[in-house]
Amino acid sequence: MAQTLHVHIQNPSGETQFPITPALWDEAKARAGEAARDLRASFADDDAGFAAAMGTADVLITWTKEIKARFPHPAPSLKWVMATSAGLDRLAPFDMLPAHVKLLNNSGAHAVKAGEWGLMAVLMIANRIPTLVTAQRESRWQPIFARSVAGRTAVIVGLGDLGGSIAARCAELGMTVIGCSASGRTHPACVRVVTSENLDTVLPGADVLVLAMPLTPKTRGMITRGLLSLLPMHAGVVNIARGSVIDQDALCDMLSAGRISGAVLDVFDPEPIPPGHRLWRTPNLVISPHVSSDDPDTYNPRTLDIFFRNLAAWRAGEQMPNEVDRARGY
Amino acid sequence: MAQTLHVHIQNPSGETQFPITPALWDEAKARAGEAARDLRASFADDDAGFAAAMGTADVLITWTKEIKARFPHPAPSLKWVMATSAGLDRLAPFDMLPAHVKLLNNSGAHAVKAGEWGLMAVLMIANRIPTLVTAQRESRWQPIFARSVAGRTAVIVGLGDLGGSIAARCAELGMTVIGCSASGRTHPACVRVVTSENLDTVLPGADVLVLAMPLTPKTRGMITRGLLSLLPMHAGVVNIARGSVIDQDALCDMLSAGRISGAVLDVFDPEPIPPGHRLWRTPNLVISPHVSSDDPDTYNPRTLDIFFRNLAAWRAGEQMPNEVDRARGY
Repeated sequence: MAQTLHVHIQNPSGETQFPITPALWDEAKARAGEAARDLRASFADDDAGFAAAMGTADVLITWTKEIKARFPHPAPSLKWVMATSAGLDRLAPFDMLPAHVKLLNNSGAHAVKAGEWGLMAVLMIANRIPTLVTAQRESRWQPIFARSVAGRTAVIVGLGDLGGSIAARCAELGMTVIGCSASGRTHPACVRVVTSENLDTVLPGADVLVLAMPLTPKTRGMITRGLLSLLPMHAGVVNIARGSVIDQDALCDMLSAGRISGAVLDVFDPEPIPPGHRLWRTPNLVISPHVSSDDPDTYNPRTLDIFFRNLAAWRAGEQMPNEVDRARGY
Repeated sequence: MAQTLHVHIQNPSGETQFPITPALWDEAKARAGEAARDLRASFADDDAGFAAAMGTADVLITWTKEIKARFPHPAPSLKWVMATSAGLDRLAPFDMLPAHVKLLNNSGAHAVKAGEWGLMAVLMIANRIPTLVTAQRESRWQPIFARSVAGRTAVIVGLGDLGGSIAARCAELGMTVIGCSASGRTHPACVRVVTSENLDTVLPGADVLVLAMPLTPKTRGMITRGLLSLLPMHAGVVNIARGSVIDQDALCDMLSAGRISGAVLDVFDPEPIPPGHRLWRTPNLVISPHVSSDDPDTYNPRTLDIFFRNLAAWRAGEQMPNEVDRARGY
């Protein structure tokens, strides 16, 4: 007889927007079919429920912040942990979990929503919306005529779940998309892909720079003041990655000086942006409070579908596609 | 020997953003080939040049505001006038021109740019950008998680150059597009098209209402407070038509009360929005100063290409596709 796997789902206490409910679990099991055999699930949102489940749980599905808060913790049967986020930079260097416990992210859950949001942000840069909302704040009627994005160039740093989806959407509108990644591997939506070391060579031709890379020791602070200064004056910046991949002060300086045309940012350092922070007063900037990629209707169903695909791989003795390389950071 | 046609181009005095230059004219002639035979062109931007040209001009290409300012005017040879705008509502009832002079618009010049802008505005409504920029004005970090637009419903009023292009872009992202037009004729991007009289039946199911119709006696004030009250609370409004197609005060009331989620407007009544007008203080609203559809790179080249297509039809004795029906108003 096959051994039953104990999967524990720990929701944050008081989570109302995105809880993984038994109903969502049952629906995902039904979609997963054979991959969902021989499972026992438990659910908790408190300390006692977590401690009790860790006595026997083989697999844990939970929030990044729960992993950070609750581990190290005795969990003698635990084999892998799936975090319900794509970017796990907050857990680096990941040593709260024993080395034999595999760590997974939910990369793949965000593609549709992030692609739409990124396309919107690129169109907002092209249509000078950051400048127009700054004029609106000051009751100024200031017509600025903007060119179509067809034929313009988007440089997209990071071609994973988020960046790849944005690249595809931009290409559909006739944009020339140049990718940038650690590997420099080709991508179907990009006319070319440069490695991170060669980003400087493509920035002078960019109409918009989109940041969608994971935050790792290599990408922290990657977009320096010097790199930003290579952008043409009419270009703008979109950030859907993490606030600390860019020199945020340099960006604010350039937006205030009109040295670049605008920015649409979903991520900041720190978050939430504190009262009185210069970001609130920076012109030519649209602030989105870290909501770009999370669709409340589909986030957990897609996360659970990704869980079951990884479970099937694990049971077959294969590499799980969402396993995080702890050394690489994603 | 074929008779040479005198085409006069009157640029507004001091026009710097969008002048039709002899160079643009020559490029368009080259693209037009045979359709550009037997032509003589003149250019002016002042009163004397206009008066001199009207002595012999067969055709005039000029701005809507120039037609309004300069006619009635003696023009014994004048056969048709092409205005470099799609919406000619400012000229209604068109009686400054003799009845035998045909009037043309440049419908077709705006499709690409308006489609991109409309798609951007629809995505901004879906992602609650109007509410987020209102929060930003007040230094408030207020996360709102938004659903993907795939599967959501856009109701688009007006399926001409602008609305048809927006419909196509929305359908490409998987939206359900319902059209509304005077005729109710089917449209390839719409799952159905209702007539104006039946707009009320589709508004309760709309996630976003896009206004892109011509301003005519029938559409002036068409979007009443009563129609707006049929929208669900989470819906938003995009207006790329004319400010006076909608009850602007009702819209401001509903935005202020949170009765609808937001609006992205490119057109207003009046324009420019005067200092102190309530629009400047209305929350959940993004103001774009009537710039949505005009791409400075392509506007005049496309307008001249449309001119030559109409010229070819006229010389062949056919109906010119851009001729305005003075009774209908577009």
